[in-house]
Amino acid sequence: MAAFEKRLLQAPSGFPDLGPKEAIAQRSMLDTIRVQFESAGYVPIETPLVERPEVLSAKAGGEISAQIYGLRVMNPAEGAEDDSKNLALRFDHTVPLARFVAANQGELAFPFRRYAIGPVFRGERAKSGRYRQFIQADIDVIGDGTLSLLHDAEMVSVISGIFTALAIGPFTVRIGNRKVLEGLIRATGLSDGNVKKASNAIDRLEKVGVKATIASLVDLAVEEEQARDLIALLTDDRDTNHVLALLREKEYGPLYAEGVDELTRVVSAVRQLGVPEDCFRVDISIARGLDYYTGTVFETRFDTYPELGSIASGGRYEDLTGTFANRKLPGVGISIGVTRLLLRLIEAGIMPAEKSTIAKVLVTTGLGAEAYGAVYLDQARRLRDAGIPTELYLGERPLDKQLQFASRKGFGFAIITREEDIKAETLIVKNLETSSQYEIPSSELLQTMRHLLK
Amino acid sequence: MAAFEKRLLQAPSGFPDLGPKEAIAQRSMLDTIRVQFESAGYVPIETPLVERPEVLSAKAGGEISAQIYGLRVMNPAEGAEDDSKNLALRFDHTVPLARFVAANQGELAFPFRRYAIGPVFRGERAKSGRYRQFIQADIDVIGDGTLSLLHDAEMVSVISGIFTALAIGPFTVRIGNRKVLEGLIRATGLSDGNVKKASNAIDRLEKVGVKATIASLVDLAVEEEQARDLIALLTDDRDTNHVLALLREKEYGPLYAEGVDELTRVVSAVRQLGVPEDCFRVDISIARGLDYYTGTVFETRFDTYPELGSIASGGRYEDLTGTFANRKLPGVGISIGVTRLLLRLIEAGIMPAEKSTIAKVLVTTGLGAEAYGAVYLDQARRLRDAGIPTELYLGERPLDKQLQFASRKGFGFAIITREEDIKAETLIVKNLETSSQYEIPSSELLQTMRHLLK
Repeated sequence: MAAFEKRLLQAPSGFPDLGPKEAIAQRSMLDTIRVQFESAGYVPIETPLVERPEVLSAKAGGEISAQIYGLRVMNPAEGAEDDSKNLALRFDHTVPLARFVAANQGELAFPFRRYAIGPVFRGERAKSGRYRQFIQADIDVIGDGTLSLLHDAEMVSVISGIFTALAIGPFTVRIGNRKVLEGLIRATGLSDGNVKKASNAIDRLEKVGVKATIASLVDLAVEEEQARDLIALLTDDRDTNHVLALLREKEYGPLYAEGVDELTRVVSAVRQLGVPEDCFRVDISIARGLDYYTGTVFETRFDTYPELGSIASGGRYEDLTGTFANRKLPGVGISIGVTRLLLRLIEAGIMPAEKSTIAKVLVTTGLGAEAYGAVYLDQARRLRDAGIPTELYLGERPLDKQLQFASRKGFGFAIITREEDIKAETLIVKNLETSSQYEIPSSELLQTMRHLLK
Repeated sequence: MAAFEKRLLQAPSGFPDLGPKEAIAQRSMLDTIRVQFESAGYVPIETPLVERPEVLSAKAGGEISAQIYGLRVMNPAEGAEDDSKNLALRFDHTVPLARFVAANQGELAFPFRRYAIGPVFRGERAKSGRYRQFIQADIDVIGDGTLSLLHDAEMVSVISGIFTALAIGPFTVRIGNRKVLEGLIRATGLSDGNVKKASNAIDRLEKVGVKATIASLVDLAVEEEQARDLIALLTDDRDTNHVLALLREKEYGPLYAEGVDELTRVVSAVRQLGVPEDCFRVDISIARGLDYYTGTVFETRFDTYPELGSIASGGRYEDLTGTFANRKLPGVGISIGVTRLLLRLIEAGIMPAEKSTIAKVLVTTGLGAEAYGAVYLDQARRLRDAGIPTELYLGERPLDKQLQFASRKGFGFAIITREEDIKAETLIVKNLETSSQYEIPSSELLQTMRHLLK
């Protein structure tokens, strides 16, 4: 048969293909995230990757976004009805959550905390750093009618827990409030129609800089001095208490006052939840692109790698389910774009992805795995039974090649049995990082490895 | 806006929608499987859920199966090229593995052990127990040119480890060998063209029974007495050593002899790997529907729930990559259909899925979460920091409602702080299963909970 075209062996553009090193690093990151989600009482739901197009488009007034992938049966049996036209791939975790909560509202106990970790799809034009499939890790908590502001604070605590546990470097969760931002913008005298435009301009502040943002506001008919004052306030990076005091001084009407009160209470609860002072700050300039955030908004950045942009974002919304249910279900949530974050951290050399093994121990079989099965297979069995993940080298190659295999994959230790060890009931434990090795009685294998792996 | 049609809130037919109870049970099952995979030295790769149709069809001689879902951009921007016609959803983990190994053969260290746990898609007509999206958990080990038979034995050890850890009930891994089966069939004098048909008939033995299988063989021109003898041998459930001895007595040519030798060596290694004798047996009748198994084949059944069919199956194949690479890469693998297994276990009441919480502790806030934030948020923080997953009830409802919430979700313990506890610096730990409760100094919360959760 003709050879397969080599270029077709690459995963399609925009669809990341993770080899062992990257996949192991991703596993580890996802595990850390999940532990923190579960630590705060969040539980998983598993909705399918496939939803009805009507569901996916409901929030956009029924319009199907160009980014939605539909399905089709490629080679339908003759006469068979193709119902795949009613299927499409999800583009986030929020719409499936809204559908699930609307469908099961009678059985859920509110406040309902759920996490979702899994792939979402976007039919974007593929370019560097843009993925068409990527893993998002979300939590949301949904209330029935009302939802305490303390949940907003808990989001900050969960983000802080995750990035502390990931130990990638110092980070800051920025906490804003849409009502405060809107109050400040309205105070400049802008008409209703221009408030949203100004909010979008401010959202790009960090990207385009102070000067360009002031110019955008002036274009919207804000007086230059007012624009300067507003931007000065938004870029004020004095400490949290100072910023809050400054905001409290101003009188910009009830919506603004409500926002400042919310922000103050959220910050107070963030402290009560033990989030260190240097892991969060108030940042009123956060608008978030999405329209549906109505109160608290979050962004998170690494202090030393600001170029990575926001690594965990979210906020509060007034009603999760919209037209799916005639019940008001407010929520607050955050989302981490894991695939993009992971691959950028690896690429930038910030996160190592060097090992292509999870097991730290390789049982080598230099005398022949089958001829000495009673020895080698028993060593592997004992280690595994003791909870020590162990690879057993079963190819028939000389010991030096097996040790090369071990080093290449990144094992910490190799177990070696020589001819003379068989009768003496001994074995060698070789530390592959230091190259030091110890001869020990075979019966002491477990206690030695437990000690070395500590 | 008009209310959304209720029936559209159900996930599409064939696409399971797991609520917290089922999703928590699935998480736990997947974790157990993963720990066993990693314990034996398997590492993940993460290929996308989307592959090129050419890749998916390569093993079927370029033919696109009716079960493959293709993608399409639903609402393409005008003039934009729709390259989604080159995208389709994977239907198993093996084809993506073959593509990945062919594309990266230069960088992989062989033998290459990999696991894959994730959804696959089949455009089947949806019916009870048939899913269009389901999670498969696979391991495969791939050799370069050759691959020791000991890997086949390791598969049995991994399956045994998984079902022992899942603790659902006694199970038996059945080990067969295609060469032995083919040798036995050929010994009946069947022509080449009928050997495969006879093998398929035998594969259905358990389903259709002895009588119908003999009839099928007779239809293929096997003499009735020979057919009876063959089926008698295949359904012989004497112990492993007896069956092997019986097989060794027969002389049906070199292929048969090779198969019997392989089977004998696999069984010997299975024992050396410590798999208990009552967890496996030889079963020559296993043919497996798939054409590409060439040697060892596996099936696994629960001893007490045979109606669940095979719960972990696989076997050895001569060449993973086929036309993808001009290098012979033999492999052996197993696959567990997790979604189907999980949902049938839950449905049959064999596996409980009763709790909709992972955290065992609920911090109740009967005095008001915000008013007493300094107390309640601190309790939650201390528990979480100590590694005890804890939900913090943040709704403003009376204590009895909060305790109902706790019972409904399946928490083990509630932490209660009454008015008098504030000054006394005490709190109540309530065991929700026994309804017993203890008043303790607040400072002893962690040590008490650690003790109770042991």
